[in-house]
Amino acid sequence: MTAQTLGFLGGTGPQGRGLGLRLGQAGHRILIGSRTQEKAAAAVEKVHAKDPEVDVRGVTNDVAATEADIVFVVVPYSAQQATLAPLAGAVGSKLVVSCANNLTFDAAGPVHVPVPAGSAAAECAQLLPDAVVVGAFQNVSATKLLRVPDPVEADVLVVGDDEEARVAVCALADQIPGMRGIEAGPLRLAAPIEDLTAVLLAVNKRRKTHAGIRLTGV
Amino acid sequence: MTAQTLGFLGGTGPQGRGLGLRLGQAGHRILIGSRTQEKAAAAVEKVHAKDPEVDVRGVTNDVAATEADIVFVVVPYSAQQATLAPLAGAVGSKLVVSCANNLTFDAAGPVHVPVPAGSAAAECAQLLPDAVVVGAFQNVSATKLLRVPDPVEADVLVVGDDEEARVAVCALADQIPGMRGIEAGPLRLAAPIEDLTAVLLAVNKRRKTHAGIRLTGV
Repeated sequence: MTAQTLGFLGGTGPQGRGLGLRLGQAGHRILIGSRTQEKAAAAVEKVHAKDPEVDVRGVTNDVAATEADIVFVVVPYSAQQATLAPLAGAVGSKLVVSCANNLTFDAAGPVHVPVPAGSAAAECAQLLPDAVVVGAFQNVSATKLLRVPDPVEADVLVVGDDEEARVAVCALADQIPGMRGIEAGPLRLAAPIEDLTAVLLAVNKRRKTHAGIRLTGV
Repeated sequence: MTAQTLGFLGGTGPQGRGLGLRLGQAGHRILIGSRTQEKAAAAVEKVHAKDPEVDVRGVTNDVAATEADIVFVVVPYSAQQATLAPLAGAVGSKLVVSCANNLTFDAAGPVHVPVPAGSAAAECAQLLPDAVVVGAFQNVSATKLLRVPDPVEADVLVVGDDEEARVAVCALADQIPGMRGIEAGPLRLAAPIEDLTAVLLAVNKRRKTHAGIRLTGV
């Protein structure tokens, strides 16, 4: 696919840096967005430490939303509402990839927390009413994304109500070594995929691993 | 593991017959339970048509609950409450494997439906208050189970609050060719696993397949 500008809202954490690194290596222009220019710049340094060839810039979230062709929401779920609400105009009708999940941790380990809108992706669609929202990459281990050049052995289940958008996001997933995008239905199916991350984290804790999912028969 | 008597409540459908067939082939004694003796007997004939060597008997659900060492709940979720409530005494403190999920289908395809108790497995635990409930096998394609002797290429995510019970259910899964049981945390993590079945069914519909899941890194 042709090079696109990918803007990562709240992209300074491991998930944003990991996806930015991998998709930057695939030839896309990466914008790591943050509340502050300084944090964004620090994240860019970390990405460049992994691969100095990646075309990555640090910007504020509003610049990332404005300049991106495709917007990735990688803020922690707890910050989603505060981050996205003021950016609805800048995002407009763009393709938005919701990577969030609402998890918490207690003495018994990780657990999913129900989202009133049905899922973090559905809430994202409410906050960005003109955007075309797809849920994807929620289950992918950030540790594995950052471990270049090792392949990321995982399938990405892509849900959304717009077929063209699902196909575009699957194509992005397919560009990451070892990864495969699989169209998996409408946006209303985002919750089980988001919440499955708690199960994978529970397995990780028990097995000291970074589990991913694959579909068999596909 | 030593041969056990496995009782399948509402076991006349493809899921119950498929699990009964495979675990019967592994050497266990299978009781297919139904509301009526006649339906149970018809299901036994179908299992024997696949493999006449399997030790399988058709009984009413109360007999299956009483005689089994391990009880499998394979009734459709919509019948769970009516089926299980009168059997709490017969089940007692046995190991119970909840295989149910609450799904529905409409013009947009399959979708998960929230269960007030949190999950079908959690509701099962409420209905059988003395039982040791584990969630497992919710994602496994009945079609693949019934397609003997082909291996069932799938991992079974096993959740429950009792470690010994999780280990026992993983051991059962491991006895089915191509299948692997993976301990995946407490019972409160059952919902994402149950609901993921809607995602797999959406993939199946699109791809004309019978998708299963595997964990990578495990």
